[in-house]
Amino acid sequence: MNLATFTAGGQQFWGAVADAGMIALSPDFPQWETLRNVIEAGAVQAVLDAAAGKPVTHATGTFGWDIPVPDPEKIICVGVNFPDRNAEYKDGQEAPPNMSLFIRFPRSFVGHETPLTRPPETPQLDYEGEIAIVIGKGGRRIPEAEALSHIAGLTLCNEGTLRDWVRHAKFNVTQGKNWDGSGAMGPWLVPFTDPAQIVDVHLQTRVNGEIRQDDRTGRMLFPVARQIAYISTFTTLVPGDIIVTGTPTGAGARFDPPVWLVPGDLIEVEADGIGTLRNGVVDE
Amino acid sequence: MNLATFTAGGQQFWGAVADAGMIALSPDFPQWETLRNVIEAGAVQAVLDAAAGKPVTHATGTFGWDIPVPDPEKIICVGVNFPDRNAEYKDGQEAPPNMSLFIRFPRSFVGHETPLTRPPETPQLDYEGEIAIVIGKGGRRIPEAEALSHIAGLTLCNEGTLRDWVRHAKFNVTQGKNWDGSGAMGPWLVPFTDPAQIVDVHLQTRVNGEIRQDDRTGRMLFPVARQIAYISTFTTLVPGDIIVTGTPTGAGARFDPPVWLVPGDLIEVEADGIGTLRNGVVDE
Repeated sequence: MNLATFTAGGQQFWGAVADAGMIALSPDFPQWETLRNVIEAGAVQAVLDAAAGKPVTHATGTFGWDIPVPDPEKIICVGVNFPDRNAEYKDGQEAPPNMSLFIRFPRSFVGHETPLTRPPETPQLDYEGEIAIVIGKGGRRIPEAEALSHIAGLTLCNEGTLRDWVRHAKFNVTQGKNWDGSGAMGPWLVPFTDPAQIVDVHLQTRVNGEIRQDDRTGRMLFPVARQIAYISTFTTLVPGDIIVTGTPTGAGARFDPPVWLVPGDLIEVEADGIGTLRNGVVDE
Repeated sequence: MNLATFTAGGQQFWGAVADAGMIALSPDFPQWETLRNVIEAGAVQAVLDAAAGKPVTHATGTFGWDIPVPDPEKIICVGVNFPDRNAEYKDGQEAPPNMSLFIRFPRSFVGHETPLTRPPETPQLDYEGEIAIVIGKGGRRIPEAEALSHIAGLTLCNEGTLRDWVRHAKFNVTQGKNWDGSGAMGPWLVPFTDPAQIVDVHLQTRVNGEIRQDDRTGRMLFPVARQIAYISTFTTLVPGDIIVTGTPTGAGARFDPPVWLVPGDLIEVEADGIGTLRNGVVDE
């Protein structure tokens, strides 16, 4: 069973995902306002146990999906993390010794089945399908060998990007990665209990059913355990922090000519054992 | 009168700054946990009025300074924003058409009179003296002509940086800018009521009394009003958001050979009408 955050009747809930809809659990646990608080309390399994046998409180169609952890302290994204991604830059540089990192704000993401927003300032909206991990046990200078035990759960990310704004300035991709509602996260949080859930899983992105990205996490230049170890060298990771682990080759920017997302497109990001994150596109 | 956040006896307060110490106000306003909440409520002037005539509750020496807004949604930093800073990169590139932006997490900053942390991983700790603005009225696509009216207050920032970690990877400065406790913000929040407080003020950084950076905000490549307009093009600014507005030439990295900060150094960042932010350095 998976956990999710959703909104119904103008109110945000967290709960468990059932076939026919949601089992709201937040009304039973007022001490935990969001799933971040559940994770901080080490209570993921406890709230799943509480959901067992409960009826659906919000049937499919009566609620909207939110990003699973709506209020993380940080969302850190890993760039250029699959073998052919470095070559895509065509700058003659070898794969770098350390991972590129950038930050996104929660408001740059929408939830499952909510359309991405294409702003009037640029048509260059692009997808990047990724797996995101949510930190359970925090720490600083976490050894790589212990790193996977710090994960509370997994979710999917469409790390939507406004391409021309990524290179708007001399340094850093900040502005191209942080347009309000330009990316998506979800649908849900899959509890993490086994390294096999992340070490070598299949990840695929489709646009209108056409396969655009297709790879395995086992081919990452910097595997997830290494990411947790490296990032926690400089910053303390805390429960609910999110690491977006990198996208395979095949974004729209790499086509010749580039192919941007347009209103009416449907983007699906799918990974073994996690599910499928599905989003349309609308003009702002 | 200025506002500040401080800790005494293990408890965090916000209040007004007096000559002999602090006037704690947060116990009188339990509805506002932090200065971010005061700013959100548009209550900066109201709490200053409430402080009038009140006695000091925490004498100097009995409290520690925290960063003025401890829980901002975002801290966005502007890079390469003074004329000679672009030339410092010696890459033959013209000044860029748009400002470089990067993100810092609140935990990368300590408050006034708390030493910066030099980590064991690298000796390349460097200072960058800057003025930081705190957003009062939020917004998206804020016109440049109205931008300064969105500022609630001003503070100072030592945007401390681990230089070799800024270029650890292929892209982005994230890791060199986000070491826990590597920078500082404060001492206090100066209420913003007049554009003259920011448009052309003197900004100076001293290390052990020696002037290292010395410039005026009037020489910024991208003035503060332009920063607010540009950043709010892609992300919604909310009350309490912080923009760190850029550092003049003269950081330790630009000396030949470079001069890094070492334990025992005292760094002072001073600006007209705001005050002086003073921090030492300790080894972790």
